[in-house]
Amino acid sequence: MYTFSYYKTVLIAFLILAHVNLIGQQHPNLTLTQTGVEQIRKNLGNVPFFDSHLAEVKAEVDAEMLTGIHVPIPKDMAGGYTHDRHKRNFSMLQKAGALYQILQEEKYALYVKEVLMEYARIYNGLPIHPQPRSYARGKIFWQCLNDANWLLYVSQAYDCIYTFLSKKERNHLEDDLFRPFADFISIENPQYFNRIHNHSTWGSAAVGMIGLVMQDEELIQRALYGLKKDGIDKNAKDNDGGFIKKANEKAGFLANIDAPFSPEGYYTEAPYYQRYAMYPYLLFAVGLNNMRPQEKIFDYNNGVLLKAVNTLLNLTDTDGEFYPLNDAQKGMSYFSRELVSSVDIAYHYGDKNPGLLSIANAQGKITLDDAGFAVAMAIEEGKAIPFSKKSMEITDGPDGKQGGITILRAGQVENELNLVAKYSAQGNSHGHYDKLSFSLYHRGEEVLQDYGLARFVNIDQKNGGGYLKENKTWAKQTIAHNTLVVNETSHFKGKYELGSQFHSTKYVSDLSSNGHQLISAKENNAYEGVKMHRTLVMVEDERFENPLILDVFKVKATDKNKYDLPYHYFGQLMSTNFDVKSLESLAPFGKKHGYQHLWLTAKGTATGKIDQLSWFSNNTFHTLSMASEPGDTYLFTKLGANDPEFNLRDDPSFVIRRANTASTLFVNAIETHGSYSPVTEMAENTRSKIKGISILMETEDYSVISINLAEGASIKLYFANNNKNKNQSHSILLDGVEQQWTGPYFIQTN
Amino acid sequence: MYTFSYYKTVLIAFLILAHVNLIGQQHPNLTLTQTGVEQIRKNLGNVPFFDSHLAEVKAEVDAEMLTGIHVPIPKDMAGGYTHDRHKRNFSMLQKAGALYQILQEEKYALYVKEVLMEYARIYNGLPIHPQPRSYARGKIFWQCLNDANWLLYVSQAYDCIYTFLSKKERNHLEDDLFRPFADFISIENPQYFNRIHNHSTWGSAAVGMIGLVMQDEELIQRALYGLKKDGIDKNAKDNDGGFIKKANEKAGFLANIDAPFSPEGYYTEAPYYQRYAMYPYLLFAVGLNNMRPQEKIFDYNNGVLLKAVNTLLNLTDTDGEFYPLNDAQKGMSYFSRELVSSVDIAYHYGDKNPGLLSIANAQGKITLDDAGFAVAMAIEEGKAIPFSKKSMEITDGPDGKQGGITILRAGQVENELNLVAKYSAQGNSHGHYDKLSFSLYHRGEEVLQDYGLARFVNIDQKNGGGYLKENKTWAKQTIAHNTLVVNETSHFKGKYELGSQFHSTKYVSDLSSNGHQLISAKENNAYEGVKMHRTLVMVEDERFENPLILDVFKVKATDKNKYDLPYHYFGQLMSTNFDVKSLESLAPFGKKHGYQHLWLTAKGTATGKIDQLSWFSNNTFHTLSMASEPGDTYLFTKLGANDPEFNLRDDPSFVIRRANTASTLFVNAIETHGSYSPVTEMAENTRSKIKGISILMETEDYSVISINLAEGASIKLYFANNNKNKNQSHSILLDGVEQQWTGPYFIQTN
Repeated sequence: MYTFSYYKTVLIAFLILAHVNLIGQQHPNLTLTQTGVEQIRKNLGNVPFFDSHLAEVKAEVDAEMLTGIHVPIPKDMAGGYTHDRHKRNFSMLQKAGALYQILQEEKYALYVKEVLMEYARIYNGLPIHPQPRSYARGKIFWQCLNDANWLLYVSQAYDCIYTFLSKKERNHLEDDLFRPFADFISIENPQYFNRIHNHSTWGSAAVGMIGLVMQDEELIQRALYGLKKDGIDKNAKDNDGGFIKKANEKAGFLANIDAPFSPEGYYTEAPYYQRYAMYPYLLFAVGLNNMRPQEKIFDYNNGVLLKAVNTLLNLTDTDGEFYPLNDAQKGMSYFSRELVSSVDIAYHYGDKNPGLLSIANAQGKITLDDAGFAVAMAIEEGKAIPFSKKSMEITDGPDGKQGGITILRAGQVENELNLVAKYSAQGNSHGHYDKLSFSLYHRGEEVLQDYGLARFVNIDQKNGGGYLKENKTWAKQTIAHNTLVVNETSHFKGKYELGSQFHSTKYVSDLSSNGHQLISAKENNAYEGVKMHRTLVMVEDERFENPLILDVFKVKATDKNKYDLPYHYFGQLMSTNFDVKSLESLAPFGKKHGYQHLWLTAKGTATGKIDQLSWFSNNTFHTLSMASEPGDTYLFTKLGANDPEFNLRDDPSFVIRRANTASTLFVNAIETHGSYSPVTEMAENTRSKIKGISILMETEDYSVISINLAEGASIKLYFANNNKNKNQSHSILLDGVEQQWTGPYFIQTN
Repeated sequence: MYTFSYYKTVLIAFLILAHVNLIGQQHPNLTLTQTGVEQIRKNLGNVPFFDSHLAEVKAEVDAEMLTGIHVPIPKDMAGGYTHDRHKRNFSMLQKAGALYQILQEEKYALYVKEVLMEYARIYNGLPIHPQPRSYARGKIFWQCLNDANWLLYVSQAYDCIYTFLSKKERNHLEDDLFRPFADFISIENPQYFNRIHNHSTWGSAAVGMIGLVMQDEELIQRALYGLKKDGIDKNAKDNDGGFIKKANEKAGFLANIDAPFSPEGYYTEAPYYQRYAMYPYLLFAVGLNNMRPQEKIFDYNNGVLLKAVNTLLNLTDTDGEFYPLNDAQKGMSYFSRELVSSVDIAYHYGDKNPGLLSIANAQGKITLDDAGFAVAMAIEEGKAIPFSKKSMEITDGPDGKQGGITILRAGQVENELNLVAKYSAQGNSHGHYDKLSFSLYHRGEEVLQDYGLARFVNIDQKNGGGYLKENKTWAKQTIAHNTLVVNETSHFKGKYELGSQFHSTKYVSDLSSNGHQLISAKENNAYEGVKMHRTLVMVEDERFENPLILDVFKVKATDKNKYDLPYHYFGQLMSTNFDVKSLESLAPFGKKHGYQHLWLTAKGTATGKIDQLSWFSNNTFHTLSMASEPGDTYLFTKLGANDPEFNLRDDPSFVIRRANTASTLFVNAIETHGSYSPVTEMAENTRSKIKGISILMETEDYSVISINLAEGASIKLYFANNNKNKNQSHSILLDGVEQQWTGPYFIQTN
């Protein structure tokens, strides 16, 4: 009598044979491979992290299948029924395909097949989507981008049931659904497909993935290298105001790796969109790696795709939320599904960094494929160690020469301070006009915020979930950021064409973390006749509960200007040491460049000495200490003016205004201190430790500032301002005392 | 050879003997008793919950003792050094006393003794505290209240080291510290001690506790029954504007149980102050119970003191935070130290309710005494069960006849909806002018808020941590609450003398929770010539994701008035179905009664049909649906006008205004629905289910309203408005159809 095990072996052998198609290509072989499936099946029941996620997905798909098949004629915007339904479909199909492979239960293959047949039945007859909002309208969704999402997910489902289908069925699906679908989002929409943009990455990955499954070399080439002809007008723009394509610019998947990624894998649009784009980048890369290893895709551009995952993970605050640079919805984090797959792929196809396992563990999810299984297995084997985020300098631009982003970190995780300094390129159409801006985080909470975008993604009531006009009129403007505004006008006058031509430049940095960290950058193009140079220092000094932030902003100008330096704080104002007059009626702060959205609520007058402002948020105190000049005014604002549809948040801001001034130096210090508990009602360390700030020297070559604590106690920053002197030995005389140092800066503590 | 165990027995016997003082009284015998100490010592190492807390306290006290003894001459306000230091001292002394008893380590007794000796050295020479802010200034602190805190805590420490001290030492402490201290906060400050007020409860408990330890019958009598003569002027007021004492009013501890507690143990000042007051009430009660069992204090007034703990625990939201009724700082919760001891005492000296154990478990703390040990032991024995909070009706007033508070609850804990309706008495000097107001919570987060107080307790920068003037000008005013304001004037014109004479009256309630719960109350005195009757219904209907709230506010008036019905929501406005015009410049909403603090930001115009407003907060959607009348206007406001010191939060509000109207009916419905995740970016159920609201009948006797859903689907409320008809059988004809029901109301769903 044959044993059960014998039958099982025969069955598996049969299945393996059956999965090799006629031209020799195995299926599945995109994200799930045959070897992977064998490994997974062999270990079912032994890897709890995998098993529990498998059970979850099975329960979800089983429940969905009970509701039947729903392929409605597309009509709604994001947030509407048909949109959500088709979105749900592609996700369910992908999962059902994986379940079929892993559980070998035919019902899942049958479900995938039936849904696909329904799409095949209607696809060719579908008109363009009725909602006319996109520069590239889809057929299933209002924009091609979502159609590409669909195809990228569904390719995986198709790969999983490929051998389950008859040749005739495959021909039907390929002829009536997949190839016309791929053509529609590429040949028929070159303005969508053939450009350098996250949209196009989705497009090329989708076309490439279905091409790989279909073994359609033409589609694969189109995906990798773009359309040879596209007829795109070089002045055409997309809905975000970005240019579609520069003349003679390359397109396709590989060009989309070349252009937006810096050598460290920073994606020029910033983390929110990088997160979104990582999915197609990595998925298609995995498909290529498995089906066309000769492309060596993970080695492409020095392995930038996997470096990008590490960079992206470092662009998160203590809680794993992405810094909302440029257009970014707050709250998006490495718990998103795109980062689940990114982390799994980076682990499995990368250098098996065990720190990634702790993030996978925190995510509590894995992908049901080779990469996810490898992660679950490694966690089961106890290989996870904490993912350590350190201070990090990230360049921007394909050659890494277009400025960048620096993150300074200090303190233990439970009390961590992060400073994010931005001196990058424009960031394509999702860029904001905020050269030399920064934001500050404490314990994963915002202390000085970057507003992010003005949009409620997928919330139908708010412009169908799309960008709101306030994104342009407020969120992108300079005044919406913690950086200098000259004459109430945004950097580059808020003009994309102009801003796209320039980037800021790093001057000097030091992330050594031995008591202080520093990032200093210059911007010479944001305003004609105004050169800006900002230096941010994170000083760890035991006299301060948390590291002290020094913010030294040097302005060199030929003419007299009005300077506004905003700090976008949160929470309740506690005290000021200068006079504040609250206004009896409120008017907008200005007329344009974002000023029209701020209510001016109060005005303060500088004392000409040290001025201080304390506020309280997240049960912590914060104090801004300013080396003021007589004549400086302080302006308190609240967001929300000229906002007829209540699209903006009502956040407060504080603006230092120095008018009628040419060259000048702003020196400010930010303390994060103390705590309050509404349960014990104990308030600790509620006061600033700073007694004075003085500018001891300010010349073309040097800036010397002193933060004065108690009598005889101070922190002094000696700074060389120019490239021509920064690496030399310096000797300067201050109050008859000579101070010597070598290199760009020196911090002296007394 | 004697065994170690023999020595231990002898030692314990010796210690027990040593702890009986000359007049037969044992020590300790207040909160720790000798039997208790034996029990605890016998089980050391066996009750992890107790042991770990003991270890924590030991570590804290050990660390403190290493810093030496600090008894500075008092000078600072709350938040300042001497204030915090003396506060820390009494807490440390209490803990060190307990450690001495439990660990039998002499160093703790020695520490307590040395600190007390230092206080005894300076006390008689101390002038009154230099800060002149209180109606009853202390010597150690700026107010007698804090001095009483000190004495209440220190009594326990003294009890613990009583037998450690020589008679001479005790005489010195009693003559030079404790008795003068007790006299100072009673005889020398009758305006503080001899009244009905939480301050006086602290005073009498403190005097009583030290009296018990000293076996000083005179002090004990003074504590229990107050001063016989006090010479208090009946028109005198305290800092909060409350009367010190009515003519012929009793005083002392027992009178302070009689007056402010309702039969269920609701404390008329509301939960924030009840929480604060529970500590002296219960501590002195425990002392009396242990030292003078003949007083039967826990049976006093039908056991109201222990009932009060249960009531207080029910006055918390899903997260254990107290509803901020009247003057209350938000965030205060049953995790406060007062509730730790209350829960332990209620368990040990009460009916051993195992639900209390789950709260103790969540608190993660116990008191180091008999009660705390009993709780820890019971938890160790696995007796804890969840503390179940149900809908609850709580009366106000000593006889339970001064209106009350009703809490309606529905849904599982993780999705719980709470409605808190207030129709109580004034609440002494901490009361707000908000008759018939309500607040709404979802998952422990505020949906419609009660502002709470305007104060930053113990934060020195904000008026020394004391009440801010905006507490009176905003927080107490009617417009700061979710209830009706007539002619821009607060209830009782905001006059305490007037408000104190009246209370609202419950009309009818139903907490049966079989599909709907209801609370209906009337207020006839807040305005001359205006009778108000509000009915709040929580309808559980499967067509709604969460229970629907119906808010039916009937106004009967002789003259035409201007009515404002505010809803104090939080978060981002999503959409309205009526026209809204945002204003180009902002002015205060009015001149007084709180209106001067609101900026009017936008105006809407009623359609005369159903008007809807949706907003988004805590990742949940909320919709207010209004049966509007032509001519109604909608006013959008933001708090913060006339607030020169930034003492107020900047919360938004929405006000329904119906002007030039005598009798009228406001009918509104509130839906809590849907969800949004910034990580998945999925928005679910973002739209209201309500298509219309109609008033089908509105007479002296009946109100009938209909909430219309889809075609033919509705929820109808039939309501009898009068005491004279409410318990009868009713029959009314609507559109030719007769509807019959019996009793005050009937809900019909189609």
